[in-house]
Order: sequence, then C-alpha cells, then structure tokens
Amino acid sequence: MKELEKLYDRIIQRVNINLRELEFDVKPYVWTLTPPEQMSKFYAFYGISPDHPLSLQFQHSGLAGSYFLGRCRVTNSLLYKSDIRGDELKKKGDIFQYRIFKIPIAKDEEIDIKDSVLIKTLVHNYSHDPETPEKFFIRDTVSTHYANIHGSPSEGCFIGPFATADLTTMHDCVIGAFSYIQAKEIHHLNINPGTIWVRNPGQFNFLYRYPIESLNQYIYFTAGNQPQGVLIDFMEDRKEAFQRIFDVVNIEHAVEVPSSASLDRYAVTKPVTKISENVLVAQRAYLQNSFLGRGANAQENCFIINSNLEGYNVTAHGAKIIEADMGQNVFVGFNSFLRGRPNCRLTIGKDSIIMPHTIIDIRKPLSIPSGQLVWGLIGDEKDLESNSLPIHTFSKIENKFSKGNLFFEGNGASFISTFQNRIQHILEANGAFFDGTKNKGHAQQNQNISFNTIQPYPKGELKGLYPNIIIQP
Amino acid sequence: MKELEKLYDRIIQRVNINLRELEFDVKPYVWTLTPPEQMSKFYAFYGISPDHPLSLQFQHSGLAGSYFLGRCRVTNSLLYKSDIRGDELKKKGDIFQYRIFKIPIAKDEEIDIKDSVLIKTLVHNYSHDPETPEKFFIRDTVSTHYANIHGSPSEGCFIGPFATADLTTMHDCVIGAFSYIQAKEIHHLNINPGTIWVRNPGQFNFLYRYPIESLNQYIYFTAGNQPQGVLIDFMEDRKEAFQRIFDVVNIEHAVEVPSSASLDRYAVTKPVTKISENVLVAQRAYLQNSFLGRGANAQENCFIINSNLEGYNVTAHGAKIIEADMGQNVFVGFNSFLRGRPNCRLTIGKDSIIMPHTIIDIRKPLSIPSGQLVWGLIGDEKDLESNSLPIHTFSKIENKFSKGNLFFEGNGASFISTFQNRIQHILEANGAFFDGTKNKGHAQQNQNISFNTIQPYPKGELKGLYPNIIIQP
Repeated sequence: MKELEKLYDRIIQRVNINLRELEFDVKPYVWTLTPPEQMSKFYAFYGISPDHPLSLQFQHSGLAGSYFLGRCRVTNSLLYKSDIRGDELKKKGDIFQYRIFKIPIAKDEEIDIKDSVLIKTLVHNYSHDPETPEKFFIRDTVSTHYANIHGSPSEGCFIGPFATADLTTMHDCVIGAFSYIQAKEIHHLNINPGTIWVRNPGQFNFLYRYPIESLNQYIYFTAGNQPQGVLIDFMEDRKEAFQRIFDVVNIEHAVEVPSSASLDRYAVTKPVTKISENVLVAQRAYLQNSFLGRGANAQENCFIINSNLEGYNVTAHGAKIIEADMGQNVFVGFNSFLRGRPNCRLTIGKDSIIMPHTIIDIRKPLSIPSGQLVWGLIGDEKDLESNSLPIHTFSKIENKFSKGNLFFEGNGASFISTFQNRIQHILEANGAFFDGTKNKGHAQQNQNISFNTIQPYPKGELKGLYPNIIIQP
Repeated sequence: MKELEKLYDRIIQRVNINLRELEFDVKPYVWTLTPPEQMSKFYAFYGISPDHPLSLQFQHSGLAGSYFLGRCRVTNSLLYKSDIRGDELKKKGDIFQYRIFKIPIAKDEEIDIKDSVLIKTLVHNYSHDPETPEKFFIRDTVSTHYANIHGSPSEGCFIGPFATADLTTMHDCVIGAFSYIQAKEIHHLNINPGTIWVRNPGQFNFLYRYPIESLNQYIYFTAGNQPQGVLIDFMEDRKEAFQRIFDVVNIEHAVEVPSSASLDRYAVTKPVTKISENVLVAQRAYLQNSFLGRGANAQENCFIINSNLEGYNVTAHGAKIIEADMGQNVFVGFNSFLRGRPNCRLTIGKDSIIMPHTIIDIRKPLSIPSGQLVWGLIGDEKDLESNSLPIHTFSKIENKFSKGNLFFEGNGASFISTFQNRIQHILEANGAFFDGTKNKGHAQQNQNISFNTIQPYPKGELKGLYPNIIIQP
C-alpha cells in the first residue's frame, strides 16, 4: 500500500507544479476522493481483438477498471475505472488533414498516459493536435468522476466531475465540474463549473454558462468532499446493476443482438430492450426497457431508460436519456441529462442536435420540434424557448447572437456544419451505415473482443499497484 | 485458427523428431485429443503475489487454463489447463546440494517451456537436474491428460494420460499411461503403461508393473482415441463442479478457513468440509464432505470425498481418496486412486506410505495397518497382502526382494528414508508446521494471490492463440 500512496502523492505534486500559476492545489480534491484503499479493491481488464492494434504497456501503475483497447502505454499512473479506447488511432502512412496542412503520419499513433490520476474518466480515441499527430498523451493530469477526455492531449490539468475536454489540447488548465470545452489549444485557464465553450478560432465562439445555483443541484464539488448532486445520485442508484457484469468472466446477455450490431460484454441490459441492425452498445452503457433503432449508438457510460430511439441516434459518452421519444438522427451530446418522467415524456423531433452537457429535466411533457439546436438548462417550455433555435435559423447567424446565458459570435453555418459533419463521422465510424459488406464500423468489429482481467498485488508494500505488463501481438 | 493449427503441427513434428529412434508418432495420439477448436474456448489465468518471483513471458502460444505462479517463460507452446507453479524456484545465491556437490546457484531459476503441448498436465516446481540448476525446461514435449511433470527438465518426450515424471531428467522418452517414473536421468526409453519405477542408481531400484488387463479398466489409451476408463469417467463426472469457479472473477468459498490455512480460489469445496490450521488446499483440488486435520495438504487436482484425514496428511497431485479414514502422517502419492464405498470404507493407519500411482478399489471394508508401505493394484485383503509390507520390514531389505509384481533391489532403508525425507520436506514447504511465527509455507503464503485472466484471440487467423504477454514486478 505504501508504494501506491507514494505514487499518488508524487502525481499530485506534479500536477500542482503544472498548475502553480493558477494557485490551484489538487490534493484536497482527490486525496479523500479516491482513498488508496479503494484502488486495491477492483480488478482491471483490457480488450483484445484482431481488429485493434495491440501494444499495451503498464508500468508502476494502479489500474482498477478500464479496457485499453488499442495501442497503449501507462506509466506511473492511477487509473480507476478508466476506459482508454484506441480504436481510431492513426496508422503509419495515413494523412491527417489539419486546415491546409496534409500531415503524413510517420508511425502508428500511440496513447501515452504518464503521471496521471483518472477517476472514472473516459479517455478516447484519436488525437487532434496537429503538433503531435502520432502521440495521444495525457501526462500530469488529474481527472475526476465521469469526466471525458476525448481526442485530446492534455498536459498538466485538473478536470472536475462530469467535465469534458473535447478534441482539445490543454496546457496547465483547471476545468470546472460539468464544463464542456472544445476550444482547440488552451493555456493556463481556470474554467468555472458549468461552462459550455465551443470555439474554432477565426470561425465561431459558442459560450454558455450554467446558472451556478441551479447547476449545484445537479453537480457540486468542493475541496475535501465527494462530489454531490442529482447526477451523482443517479449514478450511485445504478451502481449495483454493474456489479454482476464485473463478477463473471464471460457473460451472455439475455437480449437478442443482430449480426450487424454489437453489445459490449460490460454493458447492462434490462428488460425489455430491443437492439436493431447496426447498433453499437458500448462498454458500461446501461439500457433499460428501451428501443434502439437501426444504426443508433449508445456510447460508453450512457444510460437509456424507458425510451425509444428511432434510428441513427447518437447518444454520446455519459449522456442520459430517460422517459423520452427521440426521432431519427437525434444527436445527444456528452454527459447530457435528459429526464422525462412517466406520464410526462420528453419528445425530440428528428435531426435535432442536443448540445453536449445539456440538462433537460421536466415535470410536464415537453416536445422539441425537428431540426432544433438545444443547449443549457431546461426545466420547461419557457426555458426551451430561451435555450434553443431551429438549426436553419442558427445557420443564418453571421456575426453575433445572444440569448439567455448564451453568447455566440462568428459564423452560425460553420458552427452547425462542423457539428453535423462530426455526427456523420460518428455514425460512420460506429458502423451505422453498414450494408452487409461495406461501411463496417465499431458495431461490426467490436463483436470480436476477448476480455482479460488483471488484479493488483493483494498485500504488502505494493498493495493496490499492478505488476508491469507488456502485451504485444 | 490457422496459426494455431500450424503451431500444433510444428510442435508435433519436433516431438516426433526427438522420438524418431523409438519410431513413435505422436500425432494420432493428440491431434483428435485436443482439437484446435477446444483451445479457443477457454481462458487462461495466472496468479500474482508479493511472495513469488514474477517474470511471465508468453510468446506465440495457446494457453487455456493454468496459473503460472512464479517466474515463467512459454514459447510456441500449447498449454491446455496446465498449472506451472514456480513457488519453490531456486534463487541466486542458494546452494543446491547434489550428492557430494554443493552447487552455487548463479541466477534465479527460470521455467522455460518451448514447443510443447501440455494437455491438462501439472508442471511443478523446482528442477533437480544438477546439470541445469538454474533452468526448469520442458522443450519439445507432448504430455496428455492429468499427467504430472514434477521437478523435471524433460526434453522431447511423450507422456501418456495419468503418467507422472517425477524429479527426473528425461531425454527422448515415451512414458505410457499411468506410469510413474522417478529414476534420475533416463534416455530413449519407451516405458510401458502402468510401470512404477523408482530408482536411485547405486542405491535402490523399485519396479512394479500393473497387470495390463486390469489397468486397462482404469485407463486405456490408444492412437486415434480419447483416453477411457474408470479414471477418466471419474474426472468427467466432476467436471461440472469446476465450471462455476471458472465462471466468476472472484469467488468466496462457503467454508471457513483458519488464518494459518489456505484454500485456493480455484478449488472446489462441497458441504460439509472442514479445514483445520496449517492446511493447504491447492488449485483444482476437490473437497467434498471431508475433514482435513491440522497440517494436511490437498494438492493440485486431488479429490477428497467423504473422508477423514487426521492431520499432516499429504495428498499428492492428482490423488483421489474416497470414503476413507486416514490416520496422521499418511502419505498418498501422485495419481493414486483410493476408493472405498459407503458401508465399505477404507481405513489407513498412521505413518503409512501409499506409493504414487497405487490403486485401491474395494468392495469390502479394508483396513491397512499403521506404518505400512503400499503399492500397485489392490482390490481386497489378498491383494493387500501381496502389495504391501510394514515399513520397518521393508527397511531391512539389503539386497533383493520380490513380491507379486514388485521387483526391488538395493537398500530398503535407503529407499524408505528417501521417501520419508521427501514427505517431511513436502509438509515443511506447505507450512504444516507453522507455529504462528516460524515455519511459514505455502499454506500461509498462498493466501495473497490475485488471479488474472487472459483470453485468446476470438477470431481470425490467430483464433485460439494468445497475444504475447510480458509481466514483470
């Protein structure tokens, strides 16, 4: 146990050195949050398949959870329930397009996490930093509950619970709880909780700030305490359902899965769940009494409960959809929390885009029309009014626009098409358009994963740490 | 799957080259025996503990089963349910005594299995070949169901079902079904089934041959067929009980285990089993409605059913004890099959030595007195008469002795003391004499093992093979 504590301490010191300018001390946020004792209770696991490049290396690390699919390297890190997927890594010889630059990839892309603590954090998938196209790194970073680090080098950061760092490069930043940052390269910033910031320099800047008092009901995180709020309670209430799937080595799901679809071995499915063709259900997704139409995907850590998704729906990492009816092509972004209630359903028309980190929590039925862009905190019809706009209207913004807590500047059409292209890419990559031969994606490939477990040293100085492991094809 | 078949084929070719002088073709014995398809059905696992030296390396191999505790290396091999324990490996700086030679150990001993097929075979523990004290190797060897390779380099051999190669060095040998060979270095021999041979050149030579017709009832193995007989049926009938313990990641046994004892996570215990202080229950042991007294050990693959063991009993690898009452210090050797029946129990008095590969299968109650040496095939009182001798009488043999199918020459006292010293060593190593502080052994150390699972590639050319894995402290 001693070595684990020393390691924990050293990582925190490194992160604090990175954040010295912001005068931010990580220690009181994490030390009690994941006591070292916790790290030795779980086992870690990793997926192996013929379709993913394999080169796992863990050195002097605590793992506990995770599945590391694709090339990986983890050194001096504590990963607790992290999921580090490398299924879209760039390959030697690929061309990576960045603005006018066509960057040839010189060697297979690698994931390299170093001196990091990642607590229940999802780390995905493909780096977008043109400066280091062959390297997906995290380095000295502490990330907390249900945060997402997506497509992102991230160097010396602290990431709060339910925060998402998307496609960005961050240097020495603090990202507050439930903030969503997709802002290209950022440096030495301390981002307040509940900041939704999507920026493409020279193109557009989308900035929404949650009313902090209302946000605190959903997620509240202070030094020395566990994170609290509706979102944490929601996760805690469903923790037990995951227990069973981790207790057994191999699992047979009761639900029928078409040959073109895939249901991850570490997903939870409860009756009566229906999975259609080309559906992808990822690790730790939770499906209950729901219908997933053709080409829909339920990404990691998402929850779909008592809902119907008509098809080609993207339910991004950590999104929750409860008592809702969603038309085709509805996109629900990262960590969104959409809660209808029995007799008070949420309806969302086709082609709508629910921005990442949107909270819709209703007490009366609410219907969102087709082709709507929706963001922020919505409790009723009135909130919807001030937190949404038809996509075609938004596309017409040419300079500035402001509504409620949203401030937008730049080109609306560019903002919308960036999102729409990305949604299209997600559906393609996930195999939504598979026709039996062409357009294979994760839904078709993820069927062939075998999972392996690794356990920490059970006793002694090294308790909670894992032996060094190298796995190659 | 193709790569696995190629590998299988290549290993068989290598073994056949080794056995060319004996004109022995391994292929018809094993090809149908473990079809490659079988290899991809199971997962492998290995134990990690702070008390065992860790250096696992598997390259281009099929595994499926096993636990590899202690330093290991496996290359181009197919190990199917093998258990390769390295918990008594010699350490750098140790002195290995061989006759008058005191051999200093130059580096930590390693296990190195290469181009081998091991089918449900146990491989243990500590090499006794003075020529290669730092290396425990197997090389080009095919070994079949429930064979034991114990303390043994073994270079280019074929080992039949339920055969045991003990403490020996074998070069290019065929060991028939149910044969037990503990004969120091042997070369180019084809040993018939049911040969029990214990030799220490210059000291003694113990040779018993099973009547082949009777042995065939218990184990019968011919080219192109699965092994058959009572022993195989016995194992098949209990296969299901093991299923559950392999299905879950971590298991809680229902039975109470004193803090000085250990019950392996992969053992089966059925009610009402009682485990006393300093007891060791090893991997894949099967205990049912039995009492294990202080310091008793139930080794790998052994079965103890409806029996009482009073204490300090050794039940060696693969031994079966059914409906029996055993006094203190009774030793039951490898793969022995001792079957009493309800209302027809087998009683064995204290300090008796049941030789490895003894079969006692009774229809009327049978009582073996204390301090008896017992060997061979025994169905009743009359057989016992011709297959046993009081230990003190045996010790008096000075030249030659023959009784029934047994032929002995050499020094009886030397033979007995060799066995008794070994039994003492086994009890010591297993922690039978632990007093709360001193004399720790496996029973105390094996409590701290965490188990890890590895699964083969699920599909494609590599189906059934495992990725290359290197694990270090």
